[in-house]
Amino acid sequence: MPLQKRHATAAVIGAGDYIGGEIAKKFASEGFSIFAGRRNGAKLEPLVKEIEAKGGEIHARSLDARKEDEIVSFLNEADKHAPLEVCIFNIGANVNFPILDTTERVFRKVWEMACFGGFLTGRAAAKVMVPRGRGSIFFTGATASLRGGKGYAAFASAKFGLRALAQSMARELGPQNIHVAHLVIDAGVDTAWVRERIRASGRDPEALPPGTLMDPVSVGETYWALHQQPRDAWTFELEIRPHGETW
Amino acid sequence: MPLQKRHATAAVIGAGDYIGGEIAKKFASEGFSIFAGRRNGAKLEPLVKEIEAKGGEIHARSLDARKEDEIVSFLNEADKHAPLEVCIFNIGANVNFPILDTTERVFRKVWEMACFGGFLTGRAAAKVMVPRGRGSIFFTGATASLRGGKGYAAFASAKFGLRALAQSMARELGPQNIHVAHLVIDAGVDTAWVRERIRASGRDPEALPPGTLMDPVSVGETYWALHQQPRDAWTFELEIRPHGETW
Amino acid sequence: MPLQKRHATAAVIGAGDYIGGEIAKKFASEGFSIFAGRRNGAKLEPLVKEIEAKGGEIHARSLDARKEDEIVSFLNEADKHAPLEVCIFNIGANVNFPILDTTERVFRKVWEMACFGGFLTGRAAAKVMVPRGRGSIFFTGATASLRGGKGYAAFASAKFGLRALAQSMARELGPQNIHVAHLVIDAGVDTAWVRERIRASGRDPEALPPGTLMDPVSVGETYWALHQQPRDAWTFELEIRPHGETW
Amino acid sequence: MPLQKRHATAAVIGAGDYIGGEIAKKFASEGFSIFAGRRNGAKLEPLVKEIEAKGGEIHARSLDARKEDEIVSFLNEADKHAPLEVCIFNIGANVNFPILDTTERVFRKVWEMACFGGFLTGRAAAKVMVPRGRGSIFFTGATASLRGGKGYAAFASAKFGLRALAQSMARELGPQNIHVAHLVIDAGVDTAWVRERIRASGRDPEALPPGTLMDPVSVGETYWALHQQPRDAWTFELEIRPHGETW
Repeated sequence: MPLQKRHATAAVIGAGDYIGGEIAKKFASEGFSIFAGRRNGAKLEPLVKEIEAKGGEIHARSLDARKEDEIVSFLNEADKHAPLEVCIFNIGANVNFPILDTTERVFRKVWEMACFGGFLTGRAAAKVMVPRGRGSIFFTGATASLRGGKGYAAFASAKFGLRALAQSMARELGPQNIHVAHLVIDAGVDTAWVRERIRASGRDPEALPPGTLMDPVSVGETYWALHQQPRDAWTFELEIRPHGETW
Repeated sequence: MPLQKRHATAAVIGAGDYIGGEIAKKFASEGFSIFAGRRNGAKLEPLVKEIEAKGGEIHARSLDARKEDEIVSFLNEADKHAPLEVCIFNIGANVNFPILDTTERVFRKVWEMACFGGFLTGRAAAKVMVPRGRGSIFFTGATASLRGGKGYAAFASAKFGLRALAQSMARELGPQNIHVAHLVIDAGVDTAWVRERIRASGRDPEALPPGTLMDPVSVGETYWALHQQPRDAWTFELEIRPHGETW
Repeated sequence: MPLQKRHATAAVIGAGDYIGGEIAKKFASEGFSIFAGRRNGAKLEPLVKEIEAKGGEIHARSLDARKEDEIVSFLNEADKHAPLEVCIFNIGANVNFPILDTTERVFRKVWEMACFGGFLTGRAAAKVMVPRGRGSIFFTGATASLRGGKGYAAFASAKFGLRALAQSMARELGPQNIHVAHLVIDAGVDTAWVRERIRASGRDPEALPPGTLMDPVSVGETYWALHQQPRDAWTFELEIRPHGETW
Repeated sequence: MPLQKRHATAAVIGAGDYIGGEIAKKFASEGFSIFAGRRNGAKLEPLVKEIEAKGGEIHARSLDARKEDEIVSFLNEADKHAPLEVCIFNIGANVNFPILDTTERVFRKVWEMACFGGFLTGRAAAKVMVPRGRGSIFFTGATASLRGGKGYAAFASAKFGLRALAQSMARELGPQNIHVAHLVIDAGVDTAWVRERIRASGRDPEALPPGTLMDPVSVGETYWALHQQPRDAWTFELEIRPHGETW
């Protein structure tokens, strides 16, 4: 069955190899024109090929989400292409350092990527959506959005900050018919990077019991389900985890 | 398109005129055999007619959810009919009294209906689902599940208790592939009873801005979406509210 | 320095060998007449001796906190002796069972002791304090008050319920100058029972690093500090844990 | 009774006219040498006079808490004077703007003052305290630390971030005997600025019912009580509010 095209765009900021890419693929498969941004846009090539092979539409851009003008241009271009209906901020910056080894530079950079970039994105998306009274703005959170664990001063501080931004926007923009949501991924996601970290910690990722890691595809599906909610029953915050996860 | 029947049952305990009825309709429309229980089973007649008119299957029973033997018989009968795949506990008992006017009888009764009944239901459902390693057990929560407001000592105490039960079951049964979830309905639902209460408080329910009350149908859809989640991305707790709600 | 007597009583419901006893000792040392109740009042003998040896005053009673008339008589007697200024509910009922092994009897009994008894106590205390516009009503919580852990369906359900009761009372009674608070003890307390459980789990309690267990005396001090708060800066909820605790 | 001097310093970063000043006075009255910093150190003159008039010791400094070198110099100077035993970060930056009117400059500046400054302060204090295995690091929070209200995207984002920092530090440094705590002031504090804002909103601050505003003195007392806690019963987070506050 050929893709049913919509006259609408979905922007994914932080369209990495994993979660962001799967979100893009899901919304592309539902007929959205995708605008995908990441630091090095050239790395989006495989994603572009995959989406186009299935008849989807995607525009890949290099994008530094910490720069106001870049974010604004990116979202305005998307909105000019077709009305911006969905905007997903998906940039993480997971680091772990003892507090005394957390440099000023790390603390600031993690915040700029994981929180400040979210502010720039959310505000620019709201600017085009509010006059139209329609749209979804979703933010990707993590366990560290809710818990300041040992060694996570920089990361949790930024993720808590992003969550507060999302809450504040949801309370202000809900009545204007903009759906703002915050998705808490309380688990390791099954990516090469996570498998590498598991290996580095001395465990064998192949030997993990099934149901321990989350398939990135499931994140895409969850964002899609959020976007499908009727406006009289919106969810602001949603936690997902694999069934075998200890929490 | 005729209904595609499944060889599976969905039980709804607390299948009232509103939320519970809509949950039953949704799962019936998806092909489940419904077992619906409420105090006075005769009152389920309109629901039975509506579901059967659309080709669905429903078995209505009188049921006191505070009685262990009644709950066990009800769920065992459902499971004998076809494997119990979904069990939804939906009994509320919303009352508001100043603490000094809250009688021992009220405090105990609200707990028996809204919390103890949930325990009996959840445990009996788990008993048939665990050996089979498959199933969903969902509990309906409210704002009072998360906040002990003024005058809600009895109701919030029972709803907090139900939430703890659900959490504890989710942590124990998730690894056994049973999906336990708690849905927080943080809003007035659009029912005759809620409209009456609004009228009683001196406001006109017809004059409410759109997006203030939640359509019970949306609750049914939300439970359905929860049941559709892949097991590597389960949600334990989900809040829903209309877009215009102040929170 | 001899004890400076006050014309005021402090009631401790659940004056066990440990926490409750230390709370009683602290308030006795501050000059309160203590009314101490526990199931078997005879077991209060050592506490009575210890408090009296230091010049304090204590009245020990057998008390089933699940019985409305017993609670009411106990608190009225205390209030007749001297105005009831402090009432502390300190009954726990920590059990851990898999959900399928949690009997109806256990679920109900744990609730009656740890939650329903708290309702009877809090309401009876409020009844004598509200007309006077003065008093503190404190409830002892635990980690399970905030988290429904695996195997804790019964205990967490009761403790969540107690916390909701406390919140609701605090919101209603604060403006009437009654200080309602909930103390979350997020740690093992250093008692013979806890040491026994540690031993049973195969570890040596003597070999625990310092700062792992909490001295019951510290709980007494914490309740005292809460009672000392000026009314323009009241705390509703307070968590305490030893500095070495992992949380 | 003359002040009993200790060979220990307490640093207050953000020693404003109100809360910070009262914290300084309290610790000075308990014999600590105070190091007080604020943007314009000259404004500390009245505080210096008041503390010295009572025989206390205080060193006032101009300090930009967003500058790593200034914070480090300030705390090192304090520690050289006498061991740094207490460090309190008390800088707020309460602003309210609709999201579309929140500029990049405001979002960044509020974060730099209310969160990044807290990181620089907490880390520098930890650096001198950890080798000594002793000390308290306290952060001042607000309602916005826990709730991202409408219009508070910038402020709540920074305050959530500060709270995550505090949590992460508490979990890491507790076992090293450093007491990290976060005090949530869930109320208007009785200061000229708050009274002005009440007036601006069309209400008369003189006509407020008693028990509506918090005396800044109470904040000082609360921090003192936290510093007095024995290390087997430390509190990480503490909310305070006036008894008449609606919450």
